[in-house]
Amino acid sequence: MSFEKLPLEPLFAKIDELKPQFIDRLAKAIAIPSVSSDEELRPRVVDMAAFLVNELTNLGFADIQLKDLGTQPPPVVDASLQLPPIVLARFGADPAKKTVLVYGHYDVQPALKEDGWATDPFTLYHDTAADILYGRGSTDDKGPVLGWLNVVEAHNALGWDLPVNLVVCFEGMEESGSLGLDGLIEKEAKAYFKTVDTVCISDNYWLGTTKPVLTYGLRGCNYYQVSIKGPGADLHLGIFGGVIAEPMTDLVQVLAQLVDNNGKILIPGILEMVAPVTEKEDALYDDIDFSPEELHAAAGSETGLHNNKKDILKHRWRFPSLSIHGIEGAFSGAGAKTVIPSKVVGKFSIRTVPDIESKKLDQLVFDHVNKVFKELNSKNTLVVELIHDGDYWVSDPFNESFTAASKATEHVWKVKPDFTREGGSIPITLSFEQMLGTQVLLLPMGRGDDGAHSINEKLNVSNYINGCKTLGGYLHYYGKV
Amino acid sequence: MSFEKLPLEPLFAKIDELKPQFIDRLAKAIAIPSVSSDEELRPRVVDMAAFLVNELTNLGFADIQLKDLGTQPPPVVDASLQLPPIVLARFGADPAKKTVLVYGHYDVQPALKEDGWATDPFTLYHDTAADILYGRGSTDDKGPVLGWLNVVEAHNALGWDLPVNLVVCFEGMEESGSLGLDGLIEKEAKAYFKTVDTVCISDNYWLGTTKPVLTYGLRGCNYYQVSIKGPGADLHLGIFGGVIAEPMTDLVQVLAQLVDNNGKILIPGILEMVAPVTEKEDALYDDIDFSPEELHAAAGSETGLHNNKKDILKHRWRFPSLSIHGIEGAFSGAGAKTVIPSKVVGKFSIRTVPDIESKKLDQLVFDHVNKVFKELNSKNTLVVELIHDGDYWVSDPFNESFTAASKATEHVWKVKPDFTREGGSIPITLSFEQMLGTQVLLLPMGRGDDGAHSINEKLNVSNYINGCKTLGGYLHYYGKV
Repeated sequence: MSFEKLPLEPLFAKIDELKPQFIDRLAKAIAIPSVSSDEELRPRVVDMAAFLVNELTNLGFADIQLKDLGTQPPPVVDASLQLPPIVLARFGADPAKKTVLVYGHYDVQPALKEDGWATDPFTLYHDTAADILYGRGSTDDKGPVLGWLNVVEAHNALGWDLPVNLVVCFEGMEESGSLGLDGLIEKEAKAYFKTVDTVCISDNYWLGTTKPVLTYGLRGCNYYQVSIKGPGADLHLGIFGGVIAEPMTDLVQVLAQLVDNNGKILIPGILEMVAPVTEKEDALYDDIDFSPEELHAAAGSETGLHNNKKDILKHRWRFPSLSIHGIEGAFSGAGAKTVIPSKVVGKFSIRTVPDIESKKLDQLVFDHVNKVFKELNSKNTLVVELIHDGDYWVSDPFNESFTAASKATEHVWKVKPDFTREGGSIPITLSFEQMLGTQVLLLPMGRGDDGAHSINEKLNVSNYINGCKTLGGYLHYYGKV
Repeated sequence: MSFEKLPLEPLFAKIDELKPQFIDRLAKAIAIPSVSSDEELRPRVVDMAAFLVNELTNLGFADIQLKDLGTQPPPVVDASLQLPPIVLARFGADPAKKTVLVYGHYDVQPALKEDGWATDPFTLYHDTAADILYGRGSTDDKGPVLGWLNVVEAHNALGWDLPVNLVVCFEGMEESGSLGLDGLIEKEAKAYFKTVDTVCISDNYWLGTTKPVLTYGLRGCNYYQVSIKGPGADLHLGIFGGVIAEPMTDLVQVLAQLVDNNGKILIPGILEMVAPVTEKEDALYDDIDFSPEELHAAAGSETGLHNNKKDILKHRWRFPSLSIHGIEGAFSGAGAKTVIPSKVVGKFSIRTVPDIESKKLDQLVFDHVNKVFKELNSKNTLVVELIHDGDYWVSDPFNESFTAASKATEHVWKVKPDFTREGGSIPITLSFEQMLGTQVLLLPMGRGDDGAHSINEKLNVSNYINGCKTLGGYLHYYGKV
């Protein structure tokens, strides 16, 4: 190793020793079905917050607060539905130490045994032969959240002080748009979070299944809808087929001119905004542990657009992409239904990367769609709108926080981490960076095949335990800066 | 008038006299919510059959039979759900007279007050100022069904014999695919229907609102789906956007090459199969009471593809059309959802006309779709299938039955009817024609603005009462042939 290792072996040994307790802690958390998108399960999301408060209290965290975020905005069935609270707590307040804010979420995606789970999703199943922990939330994000608690428990058991002051921020709405989080961060930036030096988020995954990664970039996403309206109401096909300008016909023509079937964006001006890939940056891709076969395995098909590692990864992380998601207002069921929809709404999104300017992108999209539609010379009317945007994020992978995380990872896993980006967006990353004015590190615990959001979500025991060591090691290496 | 009028004034006067009873009969029928598509309302559909049996019995019909069609095939919630019976009955069996089979249906489309009805859909509302009868089934098809009963009642009241033998065939599944009817017709062709000379169906509408019509043609409909499959499961946009060949991108390209936004079918070979419009046929369109403004009013927009009467009507009746109905498997809800669907199924249909051969059409569609997809050179897989077809129908508008109906219409309405086609299909028309080997006449009672299948379905009292006179008159003129 090219750096001086800190004497963390007692900590790592203690974490190994406490493994049964840590797995038990995860089992208790998974047993609480804290599904934030299901209004009827909202009380169980609140139960999960209470579980965390109890654990934090027992571990000696101080200044524990349940931040009330008020009622959930529409659309909701129950207009008085309360948002789950954000859990804040501190461990240590030594002005001589750095302060690290760690973020995670205690809510989970929906899961039903009938969806195809091999075991009950809300009962942790430990496959001891493969040493894998199955259950909803195991990797996303209860494992990482509890990882921070486990690190504190191990320090307590050793009689060690934490090398930094720890501030935890655990939310219960991440799987449902992080409602209320931005407001909380803004409000607490100069209050609860005042002394925070850096932020660490453990809520993503390794690229593959064998090599740890640190993530320094995320694509953004601008989501558009194009609405085409014709007749005053849905029309009978037999009477109007052939005599009316059908909105669906127009929409299909418009959507067909957004992206070609090789994934090339057909809207002029977008690719020109993309920052050129420098030689140095290009070289970063050389060592990354990834192969086209992993893409095939993850996709369940050999239908990739690119056939070599670097092209695949660049198109996932570094270049924009345009996807057509569907059509609102048209027939979408099984079987045959003959109707001429009066209004149809096509949905598509563009993943954004440096240096695409969001507002300029919107204008290019609007101009192109309007131009294509004008050329159709249709009697129908078209409206194109942005309905959601989230900016991309790129960090310096060589800053203090990333360097500390890199050392901790190499110390635990005996291999330098890959520095990766992700193709998706994690909007809270930008929120923390911008509102706290700090660096943000994405330090994943789980593997690329953990199946977050899917059936049979899992976390390998080695990732859970070595993940705890990595989180703890990160605090020590960062505390030495 | 260019024909000798029959002395029908006493009949017409009696029908006028019985108007209150006829409206009351319709009110009783509308009060039975015989919605065939709603399994929970199936007992009410059966109640409606019982109501008809009671009426037929009181009027002196004989050989009344409720034909059991067995259980409804899947998909159904209740696997033991019985199909509603077909009601058969005769009035008269004089070998010296012609025998006319009249068909109608006693089931209706669903209707809820909350859908936007001004009044309860299952309570007949008589707007006496406008002299309009509102209620689900008023025009489709309870008014016409009861029309035949009213004709018999008027004859009975006058002490007149019917000029023909009448066979009624009323079904209770027309709004749900006429399940079981074809089998019944085939089975009874040489039995209950053995002596039938001609068939009259009153289950369609005038073209407009002022001039009666007789209908001599219907377009057919071939319905296709094109399925494109790529990844093994729906994929996360952030991870796979830009690196995987997206089935939606391919599907949009394929759908965009089916029809242009002027309604022109882009599949080679189809238009070449369409029978040329002869001069004589073209002239038939000259007198038809229709204007582009009526199209605008019916569509609720000025988004027609053609700007003159003859082009509009020919494209509705005489030329094929291709409509894209929607996409199964893609996002179809409101708002924004980022997902890459693994399999998407585009649905489109082609309205067919003489002399398009259905099987040849299928092959042209398959060849074109496969060729377009092959040119995309996509790694995804495509399957194109026919999922439903129904042939077009054209009759001789100058045969004995049409001539009798034309005379009756002119006698009652003081105007020659327009000879029209319809753009939609009524599959039972072909079934009766082919299985009984007889002519079929479509003799509508209601107007083009009656709103069958829509909210506030209505039947003008003048159409109901003059419709009864026309149905009765038709029997007399046809009986003289």
